[in-house]
Amino acid sequence: MSKPRAHTGGDGLGDLIGLEYLDTSPEEVRARIAVTDDVRQPAGLVHGGVYAAIAESICSAATWLAVHEDGMAAMGQSNNATFLRPITEGHVNAVARPRHRGRTTWVWDVEITDDRDRIAALIRMTVAVRPV
Amino acid sequence: MSKPRAHTGGDGLGDLIGLEYLDTSPEEVRARIAVTDDVRQPAGLVHGGVYAAIAESICSAATWLAVHEDGMAAMGQSNNATFLRPITEGHVNAVARPRHRGRTTWVWDVEITDDRDRIAALIRMTVAVRPV
Amino acid sequence: MSKPRAHTGGDGLGDLIGLEYLDTSPEEVRARIAVTDDVRQPAGLVHGGVYAAIAESICSAATWLAVHEDGMAAMGQSNNATFLRPITEGHVNAVARPRHRGRTTWVWDVEITDDRDRIAALIRMTVAVRPV
Amino acid sequence: MSKPRAHTGGDGLGDLIGLEYLDTSPEEVRARIAVTDDVRQPAGLVHGGVYAAIAESICSAATWLAVHEDGMAAMGQSNNATFLRPITEGHVNAVARPRHRGRTTWVWDVEITDDRDRIAALIRMTVAVRPV
Repeated sequence: MSKPRAHTGGDGLGDLIGLEYLDTSPEEVRARIAVTDDVRQPAGLVHGGVYAAIAESICSAATWLAVHEDGMAAMGQSNNATFLRPITEGHVNAVARPRHRGRTTWVWDVEITDDRDRIAALIRMTVAVRPV
Repeated sequence: MSKPRAHTGGDGLGDLIGLEYLDTSPEEVRARIAVTDDVRQPAGLVHGGVYAAIAESICSAATWLAVHEDGMAAMGQSNNATFLRPITEGHVNAVARPRHRGRTTWVWDVEITDDRDRIAALIRMTVAVRPV
Repeated sequence: MSKPRAHTGGDGLGDLIGLEYLDTSPEEVRARIAVTDDVRQPAGLVHGGVYAAIAESICSAATWLAVHEDGMAAMGQSNNATFLRPITEGHVNAVARPRHRGRTTWVWDVEITDDRDRIAALIRMTVAVRPV
Repeated sequence: MSKPRAHTGGDGLGDLIGLEYLDTSPEEVRARIAVTDDVRQPAGLVHGGVYAAIAESICSAATWLAVHEDGMAAMGQSNNATFLRPITEGHVNAVARPRHRGRTTWVWDVEITDDRDRIAALIRMTVAVRPV
């Protein structure tokens, strides 16, 4: 599946890290990136900022998709990532699920796994919803 | 100033977003990136993942610099970013200060400002320190 | 069910707010408190610190139960609470589930609900595990 | 100094843990509690929920004081606590400083110290500001 055509511009950082959307439904968004040197930190592990960036991209885009027809914009308000286990190769796989769809904020939980389904990181994203 | 030559490899994501170290002392690390389309999200604002990535890079590198001669590694454990005001152009400027230098964790506060010194984001990073 | 007899002392703050354990298994801990004026803030809503305190008590106690026979102690390292909907009466119901059981840290997700099963708060707790 | 007479009711949890306001200015709020068994967890340390509760009380009250004359209410939106060093006796001392005073959210940094001025915890609070 192609990425949500949500905005006028492209997702610069998403494109830069090779973010690929796999599935987008109201209850779940799946996306992934392939691990290359571009997303590794100096010790060879996937850079923690990559997990945060993936969560930020997919939660903001999915919130925007759901609210923009009502004239609302969606913008990250907080991004809290906890790192549990490094990923060094294969893919960084992300699943985001909405936990709260409020009038002014949406809250998402994102699970990051490696290709053996082991949890690498957990991210809780709050996305602000505001009139354009 | 060049970036800390901390590890065998380069900082893939740091390089990708153009991270430039300005100053590194035990009490403070300053770094920045120039805003280009590569770090913008679809609405034209700097992508929230960029703030998280900068914090992750500089806090991990600075912790590593301080502990690696004792045979320790440094690795992000949590990265909590709060977004306050968008940046759309100029630079993303970061200052990181250590708040706690423990035996097993270091805690850093990172302030992100725009070129007019307005706070754009606050990040609290916990870096785990472990034997190599 | 009585609370985990984990330590030499009682759980002062847990007792103060009337924390009652309902069920403790390796996969899930359930607990609750009754809403009284003691746990309300000035506007009549349950005080946000109560949600954080419940999560702290049950995750620390449950981690301790699992690791103390190996000579380890458990101690809160971070407690990240997101508040979604106020509770004003009835009970504050908590379910905690472990998301990561590492050698040095355990990570828990806690859901707080009101008596109509609506989510009031989400808390992510990291508990440090260290030799006594 | 007495606590902010902010609302119609009392601060139940604040009163329960003995919260005492020392100083309230637009730039800083100082408060403390005395350590008793009521605020200890089973191992004898001050309960992590106490730090979160103090931060929640003082940041919400101080935000309310600043915005209520404009017909706005203040309500905790997130409370992120990082624990650095246990307190076992004396006082839990808190200083809260506003980092952002936005139209819809205020962000506060709270430092918790023991009586020897050592940092015990750092809390970042986001308080939502909404029309009553």
